[in-house]
Order: sequence, then structure tokens, then C-alpha cells
Amino acid sequence: MTKKILLAVTGFDETLWQAEIERMAPDLEVVTKITDDAADVEYAIVWKQRPNILSALPNLKVIFSAGAGVDHIFKDHTLPDAPIVRVVADDLTNRMSEYIIWQALDHLRQGARYRKQQADHVWLEDKAQPAADAVTVGIMGIGALGMDAAIKLKMIGFHVVGWSRNPKTNSEIETFSGTDGLHDMLSQTDILVCLLPLTDETRSIIDAQLLSKLKRNGPLGGPVLVNAGRGGLQSEADILAALNDGSLSAASLDVFEQEPLAGDSPLWSHPRVTVTPHAAAASNPLALIPHILIQIAAYERGGTLENLVDRKAGY
Amino acid sequence: MTKKILLAVTGFDETLWQAEIERMAPDLEVVTKITDDAADVEYAIVWKQRPNILSALPNLKVIFSAGAGVDHIFKDHTLPDAPIVRVVADDLTNRMSEYIIWQALDHLRQGARYRKQQADHVWLEDKAQPAADAVTVGIMGIGALGMDAAIKLKMIGFHVVGWSRNPKTNSEIETFSGTDGLHDMLSQTDILVCLLPLTDETRSIIDAQLLSKLKRNGPLGGPVLVNAGRGGLQSEADILAALNDGSLSAASLDVFEQEPLAGDSPLWSHPRVTVTPHAAAASNPLALIPHILIQIAAYERGGTLENLVDRKAGY
Repeated sequence: MTKKILLAVTGFDETLWQAEIERMAPDLEVVTKITDDAADVEYAIVWKQRPNILSALPNLKVIFSAGAGVDHIFKDHTLPDAPIVRVVADDLTNRMSEYIIWQALDHLRQGARYRKQQADHVWLEDKAQPAADAVTVGIMGIGALGMDAAIKLKMIGFHVVGWSRNPKTNSEIETFSGTDGLHDMLSQTDILVCLLPLTDETRSIIDAQLLSKLKRNGPLGGPVLVNAGRGGLQSEADILAALNDGSLSAASLDVFEQEPLAGDSPLWSHPRVTVTPHAAAASNPLALIPHILIQIAAYERGGTLENLVDRKAGY
Repeated sequence: MTKKILLAVTGFDETLWQAEIERMAPDLEVVTKITDDAADVEYAIVWKQRPNILSALPNLKVIFSAGAGVDHIFKDHTLPDAPIVRVVADDLTNRMSEYIIWQALDHLRQGARYRKQQADHVWLEDKAQPAADAVTVGIMGIGALGMDAAIKLKMIGFHVVGWSRNPKTNSEIETFSGTDGLHDMLSQTDILVCLLPLTDETRSIIDAQLLSKLKRNGPLGGPVLVNAGRGGLQSEADILAALNDGSLSAASLDVFEQEPLAGDSPLWSHPRVTVTPHAAAASNPLALIPHILIQIAAYERGGTLENLVDRKAGY
């Protein structure tokens, strides 16, 4: 009997994934729907899977998330008890860091102002701009992704600090933790980068109260928000209010409360908001699949799974 | 008799510079024009100095350029024979690298496309984008500035190569030199970054012929040009022609044949051109002055000058 792996990756081209898995692991048979072979399926790779599809698999051993976030998996209220593994892959980490560096530099180097000047055919040699080391980037959610971005931002010249729920120790980056630590980090942050997982605890954490704690009168003329985590982390009404009352200078948002972002959202045309369509760290299937197959092979040999999700914490 | 230093920095606020020099070096008297004290002036800090001002100084010992480039100094046909020192300062180097990384990422991450989609309120989740390591950045002019940018771009994930007139050896970055080497580098380059000094040899080097040698059918849909060196290095007519015939995919230009860029230049409104007003590495006087004062102090003690310009090579 061939081992089967279920592919339930909504929004991706399943045929591409299927071909790549079958090419790399000829002993696995990829199925994309469950017919009468539910008992043969031992593994599942999921992205926003349809509810009840996993609960139909009596012999499911491991669920793999086709991305770093796993909140999409927990929307399924009949989720079976199998271990859940997040993908931690260099390709995904690198793309997230690219996005964060790109947006941090766009704010540091006044991209919006120069684009406006270009549109107006205006040449204005304004020599005054802050050096990167005068600008503090605070990364909220300094896990594997956040630390990679932090180290790269520091190498470019930014002053970088990080926050996580539980204490982290890292010799290169100053980190904070806990509720008091979050306040301490926010009060010195010019560019807030949010990479938190979406859990019951973090839902709508980016609200008026949090934004009001960011550093005032910094070198960028006010604090900047970059959310490349999940849209559920932010209150868009509060972000817009903060932009309009001047307590937030600008925002780069890759994620939204509802995706796709509604055509009539005021975020689209706000002059100090950059909207990207949940594209910060689009996974390249060809790069993620080996990480999953390596874990399956190790598990089959009796090895342990890496990057396991803590169901209680929700990430 | 107090030693005098002439400040001739066109386009900068001389009073800021003067105050900073006098604060840091109380034994130096700063003058900004020559009256009857020409013989007392032993040093000069210049940026686009007015012609004949330096030739009026019989005891001039050293000329300091207030930036990395020195082509502005050679426009003075009565330039005296004193040694010329370029400023090589971390602040300037870091700012140039910021600009290059910012623009390289804006092309890699399809900034122009996302800004257009945002303007149109269009959400288009297009997962396909190249990984940075599938994109080769070729740096033409891999000196102190170019090498810093190269190492940072490599750390972000790009494949990076460099070219210089004379061979350089560096264990981290593959480098090319000479005419054949330039051809070899261009043929594998997706993003060409130009940081060459402007000399008789490099004037208009970015022309149709050079652009035609860049890699075709690369992951960005065609080659990209980033010129953060000097406008005199480029033929804008050839760049526009290459953009319009498809042999160049996009360009980020910080420098122009004539600055300010004329209001009617077609570069302003070309959808695939980013125009910035010679702002890639604006020197912060407060950061450059210590480098000059340290050199003066060393010279006074009989030490040697660093970052000396080779007058024959012109940089």
C-alpha cells in the first residue's frame, strides 16, 4: 500500500505542488480530495484547508502548514489531534526580511516624498535626512523570522530591538518580553514591525492604545508601522485614526482584517499608506516542499519533528 | 598666526559647517571668502568650488573634497598642485548602500507594480516572484562604496558580482576587471548598479552599447539600471531608447546629465523610471568633518594623507 499525502492548499496551484512532491518523493502518492482512500492518508500539507477534510482522515500522523503562520489551520473546529508542523524555510525567511528591509528603507529614505516630487516634476535637493542608526526599528514578534530581519536591518545600519511574549536571549539584538517589556520597546520605537502570530491573545493588538505608546518626535517625523504578520493583529480603524491625528506618520500594510482588502477601504488611497496584497513572503512551493519531505523521512525513521506548533499558545 | 581653512562648499549651508569645525578644532579659523589673508590659508574643503578661488592661495597644503566624488574639483582649470583628499566616511558609505539596497529591493519586489495596483485599488495576489539569489546584481565600480553595498546585498540574498578598472581581490564577492571583464560581468547582470567615478574614460559609459550587453530574459523580465554615481556617466537618450525598445526593463536614477533634471525631461513621467534628486548619499557635514580634521591633525604631525586622489586617473 502506497502512503498517501493530502494536499489542501487553497489559493495555490495544487498541480505544481503535486508534480514537485511526486518528483522528489516517488514513494508518496499525492491526493487532493478524499474519496474511499481516507485511511491511507498519513500526512497532510494544508493552507486554509476546507473544514472537516482533516477530520475525515483516521490515520493522519502529521499536519504540515504551508507557511510560517498556522492561524489558518485553527479555523477548522474539527481539527484532529495530530501534531502540526510549521514550515521554517530559508526561502520564506529571506523573502520576509526583504519585505521588511524594503519598507524600512522606503520610510527612512522618504520614498513617498520622492515619488510625489517625481510625479510633480519637482527637483528638491533636501540634504537633511536621518542616518539609519538614528532610527530604531522595533520588531514585535522576534522569532525565527523576526530575528533574521533584525540582524539584517542592524547590518544595514538601523538600531534594532525586539519583543516576544517569552524572554529570548540573543547577543546581537536587544530584546524585551512581557507586558512591561512591550511598553519599554514601543517607547523607543520609530519603525514598528509586526510579525506576531495571530492568536486569541494577539488579536487586534495593534490598536489606538498600542500606537499611542510609540516614540514621539523621532527622526522620521513620527512613528511608522509595518505589519507583515496577520491582518487580524490590527485595528484598521485605529490605524487610520492615528494616521489622521498625526500620532502615526506612515504605515506599510501587507495584511488586512479582511482579504482581499475591500475596494472602498480608505487605506488604498491614503497618501501615507503602502498597501501590498499579502505578498511579503509568498512561499515558493519548490522551496518549501523539501523541508516537508525531509521531516516526513525523519519521522518515518523514528526521528522527532521540528518546528512543532504549541496548540495551547496557538503558534 | 592662526592657521586658516577655506570652506568653499557650494550648495551646503556653510554656517553649519563653520560652526562644527570651529567647535571641534578651535585652533583652526574658518574663512569662506578670501580677502587679504590668502597666504594664511593652508587647507581647503571644497564642493563645486568657484574657479580661481584655490589658485589664489599661495600656501595651500591640502584640498579636501566634501564627498566621495572629485570630478567637481577638476572643473577648475586653475586648480593648484596641492594633494586632493576624498572623504571616505562610514556615514556616506552607509547611505549609499541604503539607497542601492532600497532600489534593488524595489525592483526585486515589484514596487512599481504594487504602487500601480494600489492606485487602482486592485488586489492581485500574484505569488510568483523570483528569489533574491536568482537575481544577479552587478556593481560597476567596486571600490570602497561598491564593496560595502555588495556585501550587504549578498547578505540579503542577492547574487552579487563587481567590476573595477584594475583587478581587486575579495574573498566574499566575485570581481571582474578590464574591458573583457566588463563584458563578462554585464552578460550575467540583472541589476546593474553604477558607482564609477566620472573621468574622461567613464564619461557616457552607460550607453546603448553597454546596455545591450546586459543579461536578457532574466528573472526580472529584463535588466534594470541603478545609477547612483554621476549623471555624466550616462546617456539619457540611450537609456530612454533602451526602456522603450524593451532592452531595459526599468531604471532608478539619482544623477543626471544636467542637474537639476529639466522639468520637461521624459524621465520624470516614464512609468519604469524612478527619479531621485541626487540624494543617494547626501553627506551629513557633522559626520564628514571629523574625517577631515583627523587627517589635518595627522598631516600636521608629519603623517601621511589617506584616500588621496590620483590626478592622472581622475579619481
